[in-house]
Amino acid sequence: MITSTARRPRTRYLSAEHVAEIVRRKGLAACIAGVAGYIRQDFLRWHDFDKCARLAHHSDVGVIELMPVSDTRSYAFKYVNGHPSNHRYNLPTVMAFGVLADVETGTPDLVSELTLTTAIRTAAMSAVAARALARDNVRSMALIGNGAQSEFQALAFHHLLGVERFHLFDLDAAATRKLAANLTRMGLDFACFDSVRDAVGGCDIVTTVTAAKTNAAVLTADMIEPGMHINAVGGDCPGKTELHADVLRLGPVFCEFEPQSRIEGDMQQMPADFPVTELWQVLAGRAPGRTRADQVTIFDSVGFALEDYSALRYMRDLAQELGMGEGLSLIPALEDPKNLFGFIPAEAPAGKAACKAPAEVI
Amino acid sequence: MITSTARRPRTRYLSAEHVAEIVRRKGLAACIAGVAGYIRQDFLRWHDFDKCARLAHHSDVGVIELMPVSDTRSYAFKYVNGHPSNHRYNLPTVMAFGVLADVETGTPDLVSELTLTTAIRTAAMSAVAARALARDNVRSMALIGNGAQSEFQALAFHHLLGVERFHLFDLDAAATRKLAANLTRMGLDFACFDSVRDAVGGCDIVTTVTAAKTNAAVLTADMIEPGMHINAVGGDCPGKTELHADVLRLGPVFCEFEPQSRIEGDMQQMPADFPVTELWQVLAGRAPGRTRADQVTIFDSVGFALEDYSALRYMRDLAQELGMGEGLSLIPALEDPKNLFGFIPAEAPAGKAACKAPAEVI
Repeated sequence: MITSTARRPRTRYLSAEHVAEIVRRKGLAACIAGVAGYIRQDFLRWHDFDKCARLAHHSDVGVIELMPVSDTRSYAFKYVNGHPSNHRYNLPTVMAFGVLADVETGTPDLVSELTLTTAIRTAAMSAVAARALARDNVRSMALIGNGAQSEFQALAFHHLLGVERFHLFDLDAAATRKLAANLTRMGLDFACFDSVRDAVGGCDIVTTVTAAKTNAAVLTADMIEPGMHINAVGGDCPGKTELHADVLRLGPVFCEFEPQSRIEGDMQQMPADFPVTELWQVLAGRAPGRTRADQVTIFDSVGFALEDYSALRYMRDLAQELGMGEGLSLIPALEDPKNLFGFIPAEAPAGKAACKAPAEVI
Repeated sequence: MITSTARRPRTRYLSAEHVAEIVRRKGLAACIAGVAGYIRQDFLRWHDFDKCARLAHHSDVGVIELMPVSDTRSYAFKYVNGHPSNHRYNLPTVMAFGVLADVETGTPDLVSELTLTTAIRTAAMSAVAARALARDNVRSMALIGNGAQSEFQALAFHHLLGVERFHLFDLDAAATRKLAANLTRMGLDFACFDSVRDAVGGCDIVTTVTAAKTNAAVLTADMIEPGMHINAVGGDCPGKTELHADVLRLGPVFCEFEPQSRIEGDMQQMPADFPVTELWQVLAGRAPGRTRADQVTIFDSVGFALEDYSALRYMRDLAQELGMGEGLSLIPALEDPKNLFGFIPAEAPAGKAACKAPAEVI
């Protein structure tokens, strides 16, 4: 389709403040529900997507990753880091932004913050999985790890699964106090605990969302009770796990995208033939999820590019609806697309600036 | 280093217009020379970099790629498309932007246009390679393919190698007219030809920079004369070649990053053990380049992420020097980095907006 705007490819830009304002206007719970709906839609057309494991660059202090995915219409990627020591700089552990582009021409249509959006989509993904895997009528959830993602998990499970009470634990008491204050403001019921074991006891769902980049065993098999659903969110890159291997043997394990999860998930501890089911199969009715009320189910979540595709799509649609965002001029607008040189403003006489002798020569 | 700005991670943004203005003020030839210097510097510390082949998503009409690279200080990636039919939309075939980030914290420090910058860095890379591989005292260059990159190649070879005369050929006569007009404005000497063979005859250097995504044989072995240096730029993804396989057998072949070039370069036509030398080895004096004046040398260029790292570094430094660019707020500025939830503006009473019941439930 050739339109009058074709010459001037403008990219919509959503800053962190834009997205925060979008979320304020729409309501966070509604945004989580909205993104969950988009994720479900996109997971149900799993085979439409050109998928790959994310591309990670590890350093001594963290990781920087690119997460691309594409169907025949839209290409999306997320840039995201994971730096557990970033609090020393007063920066978030996880920061992200992303892009939606048009597959037909390669034009980047949207550049958006994805730090806040990632927290929303991660909680949405957890809720989509738990709806498929947890028992009906869940009422309580342990939240192990009370950092930046924890409020989003609480809100998602309250609104989308009906969880009424949260059991909080974090090694960092200040993090728990922060979460407790925010849950109070949201009017959600909670209790704080001194140990993981005490927090987990009696809960229907256990969510782990810890940040340490280490092979931890935050949950051990003896803590887990029949019928629990384990939503393991924090173990998401090589060398970063949260579940003792025995926990993974307590019941069926589900993941997002198997080739990535085998490398990054808690199941990185398990042999290559350890059985796992991709969640989309359960959503599509092609594989069983939970088969008994007393079964333990485990969602070994790592975060997959398709979730960001869904979240970017949601934020783009909402930004359009609300008229939010600004324009970026990332791509030069050319009169003649073969005359990129002509885009450089000329000094009179035209072209002479180009020929200004280089000060330095290789 | 903890600074007072640590809390507010601002990203410098260079639009296409910013970069065009930077280039106007500095001079295009000086920019090409500057980027060539940065590329040389970075290629000479080849082993400092965590390198990988680019990640490509192919569709029926084009390709979208991510090209990351990192050392211990800076992480860079480029987003770039290749859509040979984009002229139908009056859009460039190749459009790009990129990011420089801080490895220590993962903060994206720079988002910049890379369409114009890619043309500059590709020409700079060609010149760096030709300085190492072509004969001394080259005077004439054939330019096969007169599209968006061609002026940049001409200017690079004029200023950095002393080429005085250009032989032009393109299947699209309008592209040649456009290049001819631009070369006239730059005061460069040229002649237009009706065939590749005629354009190539007698030249010291042959540059191919054609756009068709097909296995073409723009150059055949019978066109090539002793002592020529072939700068093959346009064959840069699977299924897109410019040189007949026999051309690659006329003399030593050099590439940027072998694992990527074997897949994407003209040498994709050759067996896996076809000999090739990475250019950095020649620059570092670890491998011979040209050994005789009558030898044919071939630079099978595909464009490697490290060149974009160098170009982003150069544009960042120049933008700082000239005080150019704007700020983006891609990352939320948090009072408490574990309180991402607190970044969402509250309606009174705080937090209630969060709990607004979702309109839709999954």
